[in-house]
Amino acid sequence: MKDIQNQPDFRKINIKKVGVKNISYPITVLDKENTIQRTVATVNMYVNLPHQFKGTHMSRFVEILNRFHGEINLQNFHNILKEMKDKLQAQAAHMEIEFPYFLKKSDLLAGTNTIEYKCRMHGSLQNVDDLVLEIQVPIRPPSSAPVSGVMPKSLGNWGIAKVALRFLRFIWIEDLIILIESVTSHNLSWNDTDKPGIQEELTLENMTRSLAKILRANQDISWFNLNIKNFAQSGNTFAALEWQTE
Amino acid sequence: MKDIQNQPDFRKINIKKVGVKNISYPITVLDKENTIQRTVATVNMYVNLPHQFKGTHMSRFVEILNRFHGEINLQNFHNILKEMKDKLQAQAAHMEIEFPYFLKKSDLLAGTNTIEYKCRMHGSLQNVDDLVLEIQVPIRPPSSAPVSGVMPKSLGNWGIAKVALRFLRFIWIEDLIILIESVTSHNLSWNDTDKPGIQEELTLENMTRSLAKILRANQDISWFNLNIKNFAQSGNTFAALEWQTE
Amino acid sequence: MKDIQNQPDFRKINIKKVGVKNISYPITVLDKENTIQRTVATVNMYVNLPHQFKGTHMSRFVEILNRFHGEINLQNFHNILKEMKDKLQAQAAHMEIEFPYFLKKSDLLAGTNTIEYKCRMHGSLQNVDDLVLEIQVPIRPPSSAPVSGVMPKSLGNWGIAKVALRFLRFIWIEDLIILIESVTSHNLSWNDTDKPGIQEELTLENMTRSLAKILRANQDISWFNLNIKNFAQSGNTFAALEWQTE
Amino acid sequence: MKDIQNQPDFRKINIKKVGVKNISYPITVLDKENTIQRTVATVNMYVNLPHQFKGTHMSRFVEILNRFHGEINLQNFHNILKEMKDKLQAQAAHMEIEFPYFLKKSDLLAGTNTIEYKCRMHGSLQNVDDLVLEIQVPIRPPSSAPVSGVMPKSLGNWGIAKVALRFLRFIWIEDLIILIESVTSHNLSWNDTDKPGIQEELTLENMTRSLAKILRANQDISWFNLNIKNFAQSGNTFAALEWQTE
Repeated sequence: MKDIQNQPDFRKINIKKVGVKNISYPITVLDKENTIQRTVATVNMYVNLPHQFKGTHMSRFVEILNRFHGEINLQNFHNILKEMKDKLQAQAAHMEIEFPYFLKKSDLLAGTNTIEYKCRMHGSLQNVDDLVLEIQVPIRPPSSAPVSGVMPKSLGNWGIAKVALRFLRFIWIEDLIILIESVTSHNLSWNDTDKPGIQEELTLENMTRSLAKILRANQDISWFNLNIKNFAQSGNTFAALEWQTE
Repeated sequence: MKDIQNQPDFRKINIKKVGVKNISYPITVLDKENTIQRTVATVNMYVNLPHQFKGTHMSRFVEILNRFHGEINLQNFHNILKEMKDKLQAQAAHMEIEFPYFLKKSDLLAGTNTIEYKCRMHGSLQNVDDLVLEIQVPIRPPSSAPVSGVMPKSLGNWGIAKVALRFLRFIWIEDLIILIESVTSHNLSWNDTDKPGIQEELTLENMTRSLAKILRANQDISWFNLNIKNFAQSGNTFAALEWQTE
Repeated sequence: MKDIQNQPDFRKINIKKVGVKNISYPITVLDKENTIQRTVATVNMYVNLPHQFKGTHMSRFVEILNRFHGEINLQNFHNILKEMKDKLQAQAAHMEIEFPYFLKKSDLLAGTNTIEYKCRMHGSLQNVDDLVLEIQVPIRPPSSAPVSGVMPKSLGNWGIAKVALRFLRFIWIEDLIILIESVTSHNLSWNDTDKPGIQEELTLENMTRSLAKILRANQDISWFNLNIKNFAQSGNTFAALEWQTE
Repeated sequence: MKDIQNQPDFRKINIKKVGVKNISYPITVLDKENTIQRTVATVNMYVNLPHQFKGTHMSRFVEILNRFHGEINLQNFHNILKEMKDKLQAQAAHMEIEFPYFLKKSDLLAGTNTIEYKCRMHGSLQNVDDLVLEIQVPIRPPSSAPVSGVMPKSLGNWGIAKVALRFLRFIWIEDLIILIESVTSHNLSWNDTDKPGIQEELTLENMTRSLAKILRANQDISWFNLNIKNFAQSGNTFAALEWQTE
């Protein structure tokens, strides 16, 4: 005979989150310059289930992704999440995509150059939509005066700025990179006394505060999390900061 | 003259978390068999600061780690966190260490073998101590009947079980691995009807529920989070589950 | 006065190989189905210099790559190498590109699925052109009979076949994958006695020999190197084999 | 009837190399300061077989490794290779081990610090022994004058020097690191005219030639291969050079 008393207990060990991870998938993203940029993403898709998990559900995730042909934009992000939530009868649906985003830039080393920025988008749909965009921007050490006639000064890496944001209004990835690089290229602007004319040093402290200052001033950003890393010989040092509009 | 009105605003962009990351460091961990096991860890140490961050604080983290000579046990974990909190005048202190833990095991492929398990410990000290231990245990596909005379059956990897736990009482890592492997070696025990004699299939669903069942039954475990991954050709599938004692 | 006698000695420590590594770059490759497939490559370009290295040469590599807009086909591969050799006055020029190549496939787990194959092309130009193509194809464990009504059987990974080839005639990547998968999907065909009717086991030995047999039989392949890896719990086992037409 | 003519052909597709890869294993290495240093290695072991491969041989590799309890020194390296060659009746035996090697160093950032150097040893035994040692030493950008009172100048990474060597006589890893760091810490000494008083710039060119010069002057080194990498924003640049004593 089945033990009835165990049943409430069994419900407590229902599986809460199921999905697919590390799906490599060709996608297109919106690009201010060329309208569409084709790249390759790593995709995670998962749902929170209020009820019993059926293994057969697994194939649905990739079916839904296939139906949108990898066209990733704000509209499709919402529609994919909605379809996941509906088809899998879930409480919440999540999709994370990571991809290299390419921008043509002029560079000391190689004239016009195609620079890669690692991007990550995490969309969730429970009752409302939520979308977080994360960009990684490299920070180089300040250069000395250029030496004429010889090798282009190769500066190495000082560190990396990882910036995660939520928005009130749509912002192009390009415009965001320009905003972040206005600081990471050492246009530092923070100091406690705000005395002009004092050249600030490249430190974790100055970099984090200057970047926070410029992001806070942007009316389209409602939340951000900064994580600035400085490469040292053994391990890295880092500083992190989170801010939310009132 | 300094702008007084800006000051409350400035406080809001104080840096909240600083520390060191990915420090490679030789450590010793307690080992039921040999008393002490020497391994190599990747260490993160960071604090939540209520006040202004001073760059010079950075050197303190590694100084504190050096003072304990990499001897990682429950007592030292607490003492390191306490010293971080005190020396850096922080609200909270955190230390994460990841290391390979080795166990001698008998194995189909190579007789007595030294098996590596990835472990991770995350300790925090705010008002009270908190310690989470995470272990990764590989899951292999069920073997067919062994074929005599030829190559030892090499089974490949079916997936991995990542188990994070909090404890009421000290448990040896070895004993925890034995507990987890009693399920991951396909001693599956979950089914809805609890009818005996029905051989359960190796599925994400069965693995997750059987593992949850056996961990819940252990009186020394107060919380756990399971994440079971199944390797598929393109990406992985996974199921996750969290449980807390009442 | 300059020490003349030192000069022959100085020549011996001339730098022999210079270039760029790990450039992330959007490329297009030829694709039997869709004519063109857009993906993202990691590119290495380097030359053997007979004379003194000038740092300013570095920018040339990416300039050349930019001029071809990332269109990677046999003709362009040769032209890029020729331009590298000429512009940098080098004895030999090399380009390696690694990229995920996507094929639509039907899969037990998810119906029609987009599968990723890691590809690598290594072209060299000294006096003659040389091109090696490498493909990685996953090997799964043999499935048991499918169980109706429940979760699609998830098999995990048994191992991976890394196949490097040289060609006498152009072969589509798709056709090569079909050729390799005819064996890696366990259509094993090697045995010493060639007695029919004996079901061969999935072993490193059988997999390596069966794959070698089928590649040798293809008239368009002039050379190959196989490296078959089997995932085991602690580390992997592997077998390798090289073959060249006479 | 069996096709006799095919048999010489079959021999040509005999498997040529078999072994184990990526075995994680605790080892001890000789250390000038403390006599013995305990670390964790990734081990590859493989043999060239003149005859038919037997799958059962696979277990022998780890059995042999176990017999030496992970004590890695020059004597044991030879003995392990000899035992592999004998037990597996092989033409040649190979063992590669990679491990982090730790040295206590004083560092701008954190006073006395434990620095990690990635090391790799590749031993082969065919008719004679051959041993190659490889060390990776980070290169930092030249620092500006230190700023008193504020954060210790964190310099980031300029690049990495990968140095592979063969020896005529035993050299301590510590002494080798000191030799390499005498150059990588920007004590550059190469210039064409050998005019004193001209401060050399940190370039790939100067770094590679200065390092070659100092290694060539060491009587205990019979061969070396340098690979100097400079981290740039998109990908890296590198220069390589090989030298052998006459």
